[in-house]
Amino acid sequence: MNIKGFQFSAVEAAIKKPGRLDLALIFSETPAAVAAVYTTNKVKAAPVLLDMERTRNGSCQAIVVNSGNANACTGPRGMDDARETTRLVAEGLGIPDEAVLVSSTGVIGVPLPMERIRTGIRPLVDGLSGGTLDEVARAIMTTDTFPKLESRKGSAGGKEYTIAGIAKGAGMIMPNMATMLAFIVTDAAVEPAWLRTVFAAGIERSFNAITVDGDTSTNDTAVIMANGAAGNPPLTGSADGAADFVRLLDEVLLALAKLIVRDGEGATKFVEITVRGARSDADAKRAAMAVANSCLVKTAFFGQDANWGRIFAAVGYSGADVEPERTELFFDDVLMVKNGVFAGGDAEARGTEILKQKEFKVVVDLHLGGGAATVYTSDLSYDYVKINADYRT
Amino acid sequence: MNIKGFQFSAVEAAIKKPGRLDLALIFSETPAAVAAVYTTNKVKAAPVLLDMERTRNGSCQAIVVNSGNANACTGPRGMDDARETTRLVAEGLGIPDEAVLVSSTGVIGVPLPMERIRTGIRPLVDGLSGGTLDEVARAIMTTDTFPKLESRKGSAGGKEYTIAGIAKGAGMIMPNMATMLAFIVTDAAVEPAWLRTVFAAGIERSFNAITVDGDTSTNDTAVIMANGAAGNPPLTGSADGAADFVRLLDEVLLALAKLIVRDGEGATKFVEITVRGARSDADAKRAAMAVANSCLVKTAFFGQDANWGRIFAAVGYSGADVEPERTELFFDDVLMVKNGVFAGGDAEARGTEILKQKEFKVVVDLHLGGGAATVYTSDLSYDYVKINADYRT
Repeated sequence: MNIKGFQFSAVEAAIKKPGRLDLALIFSETPAAVAAVYTTNKVKAAPVLLDMERTRNGSCQAIVVNSGNANACTGPRGMDDARETTRLVAEGLGIPDEAVLVSSTGVIGVPLPMERIRTGIRPLVDGLSGGTLDEVARAIMTTDTFPKLESRKGSAGGKEYTIAGIAKGAGMIMPNMATMLAFIVTDAAVEPAWLRTVFAAGIERSFNAITVDGDTSTNDTAVIMANGAAGNPPLTGSADGAADFVRLLDEVLLALAKLIVRDGEGATKFVEITVRGARSDADAKRAAMAVANSCLVKTAFFGQDANWGRIFAAVGYSGADVEPERTELFFDDVLMVKNGVFAGGDAEARGTEILKQKEFKVVVDLHLGGGAATVYTSDLSYDYVKINADYRT
Repeated sequence: MNIKGFQFSAVEAAIKKPGRLDLALIFSETPAAVAAVYTTNKVKAAPVLLDMERTRNGSCQAIVVNSGNANACTGPRGMDDARETTRLVAEGLGIPDEAVLVSSTGVIGVPLPMERIRTGIRPLVDGLSGGTLDEVARAIMTTDTFPKLESRKGSAGGKEYTIAGIAKGAGMIMPNMATMLAFIVTDAAVEPAWLRTVFAAGIERSFNAITVDGDTSTNDTAVIMANGAAGNPPLTGSADGAADFVRLLDEVLLALAKLIVRDGEGATKFVEITVRGARSDADAKRAAMAVANSCLVKTAFFGQDANWGRIFAAVGYSGADVEPERTELFFDDVLMVKNGVFAGGDAEARGTEILKQKEFKVVVDLHLGGGAATVYTSDLSYDYVKINADYRT
């Protein structure tokens, strides 16, 4: 895939086990508009803290990413290591340090193996001529079972552009935690302030609408770079093609987010949970997330059990406004609960059939207002416990 | 055990499988001061809604409890059934309907089998002469593997009294949800308003400080009845022996709460999590609960993996104030993390040894203030998934 003015590279730096790419570089030949969303965790990894400073001015030119080590809970040394990594990349590329972002994912609490990273950066920069975004997608994987790459083509002001994104998901490298990373590149020209607005909104409907286990990592990062190489007049809210750009960007983000859930640790089901008729969108999301994160609901999904009572209870404790006697619940198009009580008839049998599918929808209608939200989750299986408990044994 | 002026009874009403007690009665020969704490779930079962009305005036005389059916999400019919159950008991005992409370635990969304309950109430009332609190403790079990009963003796104003309590725990009957029920009886005389205060405070430190899976049931109920048969001057904040009563009550509540965690579904570990040095007690509890409910932390406990990074991350997303570079973390007395980074040395090896124990403590010191809280939790095991996914297969 060609995204004009971007170059990619990935190498084996021996941070992970032999035979796996683990150091990657995304480079824009010219300074690009940048927007980013970071973990809300108050314990933030060093690369997150550094990138938060550097994306504030709305421009950057390169992102270096390593997997195998999260550089989290590593104190002042971790900050030094993150800075040095970006400095080495900046020197190789001949650009200012401040134009380079860094992301890390993997083991927590262990210093970065800087000798390996130092050694890896030269071939990484040299490899830019021949690398691909797909290689970068593979280099950022941890326990992901497949690389995650999505793209769309659009046009604005008579110029064709591409939006391409990669992500890694809720995998863990023992003894550590899940980290979600996503990097989006586009050759469209986009006005930086507007890019920030539409990117944050898209993240809310995609990466912030998925959950595998409800744990927010120290390293979660989503970055978009727009370098303008397509030559369109910079996109803003009022520009021709702006709505189209937002739609295509949202599609890329949502597709990547769904891939993360599908690749969730031990996942055997992909479940879309919609809450509608809520007092507000925020209430709807609160209720949907409570359902999506309930261990009882998720084990019932794994057990293929049409256990609507657990869903009902999760909505009840979510904090969202709910009047049980008005609430409806559907599995796909089967009405399971009406006015807060079991719908009866063949609902149990039909609901159980739906839960045997690999994918299904849960819809809760609160009948209180116009608020709605959709989130995506997986089930909670033996393999989830196995992956997260038994990795070292 | 004899708690003056209280009688107990339990029978098989065929709500559960044959051979198991499932209908129980606690009766005070005279009206007793009553205080209660109910689920915060907005989806409340019929018996909870009825009891909330009836405990408001601070007095009651009997509690009828069934297991095997939660009478939750059962609509208007559920309320009628709850009322009829209390009316039949009241008639049998010759007391007003309003003096009878009712609790239910078990299957959700299925109407109570009222014919069986109607048939059971006569022998239930007749059995009061020969029953015991231990039988009641057994009759309220669902997937609990042992009955939970605790008692303490004290004295006030020269009169001996007993506080005895029973509880059932985070077990589920498929296709349904966990419910926590606790009933405390004492023959001490206690002023109703003060009883309410000290009971609510005790619950906060006990039943509200435990978690197995973070799901709040529709039926959670804790009730205390104090009938004054011991003959002491009624206890209030300023009375002789008040502090002692609070201490003994707290001991009973905490002991019962810990039994529930020990009997948690699939639990192989009992973990005490303390957060101290927080900006406030509320912040400390928020952080401790986030750790206790984290699937990643709980699977690491199951895997006996000294994965302090997951604990650190859970504190970080809890919403509590935290400055990572000041935070310390201990497993029992082993310092794992100092100033936000791994303590090094033999901490990893020693921490792993501690996690091999059946019971251990996790202490997080935020070094920000004087707030502290302790909560109790279990691990997340294959058996948790099995119990909650595979019950019907």
